[in-house]
Amino acid sequence: MAVYTEVSDDELEEFAAEYDIGEVVSCKGIAEGVENTNYLLQTDQGNYILTLYEKRVNPEELPFFLGLMEHLAARGLACPTPIHGRDGKALRTLCGRPAAIVSFLKGMWTRRITLNHCSELGPTMAQMHLAGADFPLTRSNNLSVSGWRPLFEAIRPRAAEINADLEPMIEAELRHLEAHWPTTLPVGLIHADLFPDNVFFLADKAAGVDRMSGFIDFYFACTDALAYDIAICLNAWCFEDDGAFNATKARLMLNGYRRVRPLSADELQALPLLARGAAMRFLLTRSYDWLNTPPGAMVKRKDPMEYYRKLRFHQGVSGPGQYGIE
Amino acid sequence: MAVYTEVSDDELEEFAAEYDIGEVVSCKGIAEGVENTNYLLQTDQGNYILTLYEKRVNPEELPFFLGLMEHLAARGLACPTPIHGRDGKALRTLCGRPAAIVSFLKGMWTRRITLNHCSELGPTMAQMHLAGADFPLTRSNNLSVSGWRPLFEAIRPRAAEINADLEPMIEAELRHLEAHWPTTLPVGLIHADLFPDNVFFLADKAAGVDRMSGFIDFYFACTDALAYDIAICLNAWCFEDDGAFNATKARLMLNGYRRVRPLSADELQALPLLARGAAMRFLLTRSYDWLNTPPGAMVKRKDPMEYYRKLRFHQGVSGPGQYGIE
Repeated sequence: MAVYTEVSDDELEEFAAEYDIGEVVSCKGIAEGVENTNYLLQTDQGNYILTLYEKRVNPEELPFFLGLMEHLAARGLACPTPIHGRDGKALRTLCGRPAAIVSFLKGMWTRRITLNHCSELGPTMAQMHLAGADFPLTRSNNLSVSGWRPLFEAIRPRAAEINADLEPMIEAELRHLEAHWPTTLPVGLIHADLFPDNVFFLADKAAGVDRMSGFIDFYFACTDALAYDIAICLNAWCFEDDGAFNATKARLMLNGYRRVRPLSADELQALPLLARGAAMRFLLTRSYDWLNTPPGAMVKRKDPMEYYRKLRFHQGVSGPGQYGIE
Repeated sequence: MAVYTEVSDDELEEFAAEYDIGEVVSCKGIAEGVENTNYLLQTDQGNYILTLYEKRVNPEELPFFLGLMEHLAARGLACPTPIHGRDGKALRTLCGRPAAIVSFLKGMWTRRITLNHCSELGPTMAQMHLAGADFPLTRSNNLSVSGWRPLFEAIRPRAAEINADLEPMIEAELRHLEAHWPTTLPVGLIHADLFPDNVFFLADKAAGVDRMSGFIDFYFACTDALAYDIAICLNAWCFEDDGAFNATKARLMLNGYRRVRPLSADELQALPLLARGAAMRFLLTRSYDWLNTPPGAMVKRKDPMEYYRKLRFHQGVSGPGQYGIE
């Protein structure tokens, strides 16, 4: 939870005057999000999200992220849409930081993942992959296989502070991943951070179910194997709190995805390895953050060992059948 | 900034179903506020604030606070109004904590206090005092003169960690305040925490000024000398960042107040002493919080010495004329 940059009323008024969004009537810092500062901005015309991009975001990459959201929204995918100012620009400066206003997306992220949510996630993720196919910009995934060893080297000297098994396990696993990482799978635009807090749902009371209302937070989006997005979701959505893998959730998510975008035999075969890689990515970044988050920081550290255990699970998976699909 | 209690989507749905406020479409934790957890709750009918009362609020006092907001709102004062559930109750339990939904108040608090804001504050504060006159409940001010010495004793052993002069200065000042604290001034309902972040404004573009849109956060409200509320505002609104007292701001605030509720000669004469007491109250609580906030806490500590210097200023004031009024 974090508001890193406080925007004064004067600065806000001047900033909002660049847009055709009406008069500001309220602006409240949102406690969610750990990378950027977000405000819920209300005007007499509607609700918006005002984001100030903090130091972990490379300003040069913002046109990619904002352009992608706009591209996906134009193709009917539910996601925040950047609002353009009167000068046509969506990206400008506020309090010395790059800043943008995006449309407000209704919905809430779920704290208790059910089969219902996994069923909803699959097809919408596939729709996003299809909608991104003709996005003209690309961005390499700097948190994929070639980025893992430098991260490992950065945490290696203190890895034992987290767990004694961490260093040897990562060392062996990295060697395996580097040797076998797939390079011929269908590539496209992936979200790369589809954790539950980036996926919104709304209750459909009449039907007694939750419906997906959209994706948020595209600031890790990149060009990579589409199936890698699925692998991230296998980790983020299909394990129970006690560490058990829920194959029913995986099956619902995967089969929902395949109804919209069929997976090739290669993609299916690669899933266990991709899931190991995805677990490695979050094991490494969580370990790094764990070791480098000062005690006074206003951010809750996430347990790296959760991803150690998920990685161990996928190491024991012999084929996609264990993810509940034929 | 703080969200102490995270409310799950399931718990929220169940809670909201007790109210006739429509379907929840969004619920975001607000980063402001240090005492309680606040969510901006949006339904298909409008916006609300959902508050979970954390441990610093005494649950037995909540009927006073909620009843007061309802009383003042019914008399036309702009402030959040508690929403009653279908069972008539405004106060219930969520995630094991007392919780209430109140109406959403438009506006923003100002980060840069101008003469305009002080002009607006005075008359509205007076209106609140008049509107509170027939509120039937009372609550003693446990942070007034009788509560200061126990607070002092709690910080005394470590006061030097803040400043070497702190202990002797407080000791001498406390003796003076205890001997001279006024007991015959007009008493009524006061807010007792009218800092800028509890006072909302909206821009009136046509007139080129900000207009007060209301007060929030009545969780220190109590029954005490009405002029004590003014004294708190002299401290909170009329000093510049460099420590200088701005008599023009004080004059505008005081004269605005007096147009709505005239001050007696006794009240005017007592102002410097009340301002010393008000500075003492915040010097003590800030010192206590400074010494007792753990380094990892998600709360920004406020500098006690700001109030030490304000107290020193009021010690040198010989009469209300120095606050800019005749």
